[in-house]
Amino acid sequence: MAQSLETIAKALEARVAGDLSIMIASASEPHTAAPDQIALAMDPKYLDKIREGRARAAIVPEGTDWRGLGLEGAIFVTRPRLAMAGLSKAFDPGPEIAPGIHPSAVIDPSAEIGIGAAIGPFVTIGAGVRIGARARIASHVSVAEGARVGDDAMILQGVRIGARVVIGDRFIAQPNAVIGADGFSFVTPEKSGVEEIRQTLGKREEIREQHWTRIHSLGTVEIGDDVEVGANATIDRGTVRATSVGRGTKLDNMVHLGHNVQVGEDCLLCGQVGVAGSTRIGNRVVLAGKCGVSDNIFIGDDVIAGGGTNIYSNVPNGRVIWGSPAVKMETQVEAQKNIRRLGRLFTQVAELRETVTRLAQKGDTE
Amino acid sequence: MAQSLETIAKALEARVAGDLSIMIASASEPHTAAPDQIALAMDPKYLDKIREGRARAAIVPEGTDWRGLGLEGAIFVTRPRLAMAGLSKAFDPGPEIAPGIHPSAVIDPSAEIGIGAAIGPFVTIGAGVRIGARARIASHVSVAEGARVGDDAMILQGVRIGARVVIGDRFIAQPNAVIGADGFSFVTPEKSGVEEIRQTLGKREEIREQHWTRIHSLGTVEIGDDVEVGANATIDRGTVRATSVGRGTKLDNMVHLGHNVQVGEDCLLCGQVGVAGSTRIGNRVVLAGKCGVSDNIFIGDDVIAGGGTNIYSNVPNGRVIWGSPAVKMETQVEAQKNIRRLGRLFTQVAELRETVTRLAQKGDTE
Amino acid sequence: MAQSLETIAKALEARVAGDLSIMIASASEPHTAAPDQIALAMDPKYLDKIREGRARAAIVPEGTDWRGLGLEGAIFVTRPRLAMAGLSKAFDPGPEIAPGIHPSAVIDPSAEIGIGAAIGPFVTIGAGVRIGARARIASHVSVAEGARVGDDAMILQGVRIGARVVIGDRFIAQPNAVIGADGFSFVTPEKSGVEEIRQTLGKREEIREQHWTRIHSLGTVEIGDDVEVGANATIDRGTVRATSVGRGTKLDNMVHLGHNVQVGEDCLLCGQVGVAGSTRIGNRVVLAGKCGVSDNIFIGDDVIAGGGTNIYSNVPNGRVIWGSPAVKMETQVEAQKNIRRLGRLFTQVAELRETVTRLAQKGDTE
Repeated sequence: MAQSLETIAKALEARVAGDLSIMIASASEPHTAAPDQIALAMDPKYLDKIREGRARAAIVPEGTDWRGLGLEGAIFVTRPRLAMAGLSKAFDPGPEIAPGIHPSAVIDPSAEIGIGAAIGPFVTIGAGVRIGARARIASHVSVAEGARVGDDAMILQGVRIGARVVIGDRFIAQPNAVIGADGFSFVTPEKSGVEEIRQTLGKREEIREQHWTRIHSLGTVEIGDDVEVGANATIDRGTVRATSVGRGTKLDNMVHLGHNVQVGEDCLLCGQVGVAGSTRIGNRVVLAGKCGVSDNIFIGDDVIAGGGTNIYSNVPNGRVIWGSPAVKMETQVEAQKNIRRLGRLFTQVAELRETVTRLAQKGDTE
Repeated sequence: MAQSLETIAKALEARVAGDLSIMIASASEPHTAAPDQIALAMDPKYLDKIREGRARAAIVPEGTDWRGLGLEGAIFVTRPRLAMAGLSKAFDPGPEIAPGIHPSAVIDPSAEIGIGAAIGPFVTIGAGVRIGARARIASHVSVAEGARVGDDAMILQGVRIGARVVIGDRFIAQPNAVIGADGFSFVTPEKSGVEEIRQTLGKREEIREQHWTRIHSLGTVEIGDDVEVGANATIDRGTVRATSVGRGTKLDNMVHLGHNVQVGEDCLLCGQVGVAGSTRIGNRVVLAGKCGVSDNIFIGDDVIAGGGTNIYSNVPNGRVIWGSPAVKMETQVEAQKNIRRLGRLFTQVAELRETVTRLAQKGDTE
Repeated sequence: MAQSLETIAKALEARVAGDLSIMIASASEPHTAAPDQIALAMDPKYLDKIREGRARAAIVPEGTDWRGLGLEGAIFVTRPRLAMAGLSKAFDPGPEIAPGIHPSAVIDPSAEIGIGAAIGPFVTIGAGVRIGARARIASHVSVAEGARVGDDAMILQGVRIGARVVIGDRFIAQPNAVIGADGFSFVTPEKSGVEEIRQTLGKREEIREQHWTRIHSLGTVEIGDDVEVGANATIDRGTVRATSVGRGTKLDNMVHLGHNVQVGEDCLLCGQVGVAGSTRIGNRVVLAGKCGVSDNIFIGDDVIAGGGTNIYSNVPNGRVIWGSPAVKMETQVEAQKNIRRLGRLFTQVAELRETVTRLAQKGDTE
């Protein structure tokens, strides 16, 4: 699937110069590039590396003297990561799933499979399922009864989609993700220790032996258009209403969304983020890796949280937070600085106490 | 599967009033309820919403003026979450798995499958496995040689049960959970850096290059009755004895139990909790989301840990803990308050130093 | 698969005494040992327990009076955990996978399967795949187009190996691990909030609504010899170059390696560790459970991090670190001690302020 330099430049909507007919098979870092690879040197610091490789063409910053680097052609970009998006899309072969339905797949006769769908080996599709047009469903996927998936889905190996889950168009799910497991919701006949300390902030009365009774998840999961879910991520169904993920939101590997959670649009939830039950997250929120969010709270629009942040209470719109418990990023940076300086503070206070004791004694003896 | 209001009230062991013959198909939040749905208004703050929906019957707190809300019938509850447990059980259709054994399943002839079991497509069941009566095993599950699962199990898609694992009755496993993976246990020919710093608390002698040799897991996993395991959770086998999970304990999604871990009865381990090897956890312990527990320690009965707590040492019975490292919750709250006040403390000490220097000089010059 | 005491001693390269012909079927803790089990009493504190069980032979420390414990034979060891490695290997039956290729497996005609390989039910192997000799591939595994796996692999149930992934010899993957999912890499047309606060350390200009565009993962994953990957762990493919894991490195359950990450040789990454994109980790690094590592940083050789450590910046070779943010372990221990002492410090400073005010007033009135 080699493409001409001209075709690639058009895909990137970028300016191109030199021999537009050079055929490019794939992309490479500059120093390892073969003659049929385009060298990625969007950052000026990589321009020197072009001579170490054998690329005929490269992607370079605007204004680069490409001929001086020994190139025969060049594409010019101003926002490197955006160019990378277009370029990587152009060269991604995608997963190989043969057209049509693999004979081993077990598909309920009442399921509707969209035109142009490709369904791999050992897939199960339950009663009343609706799969959109051009869906690509890799091997070992299960889609349970009544679920709906929109057009142009790419659902990779071993993904589990639970009963009655509703998913929009252009959905991408990485291997072994689980959409629509039962929520983690239990109750004891009488007030539990957890309920008690939530009210008393830590104090407990007499401890009673009690068993946990399951609250079943009658709700489902609703996912908007253009959502992606990472490998081994999990989204639990709601108790009565649906757990929901808004249009354009992306979940990384091992992200966990509890029952009834509502995530807004265009959010990024990075690797191993966990959101406990019934919490609402606004639009364009970015939670870096390993953030934890308590249950039943509200995270406003445009919040950004640094890696490993634990959020225990509501966060207003637009706030940048970090730490455990989460506070404003500058507050956290200041707190850490203060903690590092504590040793000296203890010394100073000890010295002060000595001096003041001496001064006080002197005053008394005068 | 519509049920009469009377039937539902009996299932909840709750008082009912009005037209007992109203047929209810499912439950709903009050404002979106259709005429065949029961409105959930256990909390007084939701009573107003009943008029916004079209429910004929509702679940309401004792003493509610249900006729005044336009209802034709009502069920009265005192502990809403407990009522929700009964109600959700009554309305949960459960996963659709056809009765009998799907022809695609690969079942060793020496396996014993209990009466009334339903086994889905692409399931594998190894030699000598014993599955109890009425088990429901969804598609893509593997149960390896010699494993035993009790009666009334619900094992969802893609769950892995390892060789010789023993599980009690009424077991529930959400999709892609892994019970009985090998433990993470390695040794170097000579003392490793990790062993050294555990003794010296951080100091290291000469660093040697060494490879890791595997300690195989000969033990298995033993799980009591009424245990649930979340999606993508993992429980490793023991080295010699079994890793064990006590009766009535519930593990949420992505919980990890290392080799030899022993968890007691009626515990709740929430999303993404991790417990390292050989640690023992008592009964009725609740670990909120993302808690981490070090290896080879002991957590007493009735311990409750807040979200994101990291536990590095033994915890006595009944303690409520929070933070990293874990301390009593009130100690943690106090420490955080103190840290927030540090900026002012630094200022005060700086001022004191100035004043005291001045006083000391004055004293000297007098 | 019973073995004589002599055979076991040879496998352990250990000194043996007494009746070398005793047949041993498996290993046990001393107090529960049956006559055909060898009692594990490598630690002197377990020697007393031998009499509680019925073992005829035991593994004991050098110098133990084994006859005095009622044993008929004994193996002597100096480094117990190392002995356990040899012993557990000798007794591990491994997973039961029938020789040859199960008829239900879907294997592309262009794939090359090594001599002596055993491939279980419902396995899929894509076009151009190369699997080494003696590989054992359990049920429900998928190996996508162009992937290569070396000799003597053990790939357990439900593992996903993505397209063009390259793996060395003696690879072990626990159930449902995912090697080669797409990286989590997105870009907005204009500068995103995350890019902005990385430069300003928290300050933000006007917030703009923007959508995320996917950067596809064209790179792959390269894994050296003797690597193990835990259950439900995930390793994402690189953007252009490969994500890589060096020879001898072991990843525990639910470890996540982001795109472009490079992990060196002989590392141990324990349960639920997460490493964000493009970070490089040296050789012999040990990250205890739940450690998080930011993107685009460098962790030197022989670094050891305590459980729950969050690493936000480069770490030099050989450093032992702990905490969030990570600092030298002794610095962290000191900081925690200081925080615990803060209450007293506040009291002391308050008292000092009173005394000094009094002294100053006294000085003024004199």
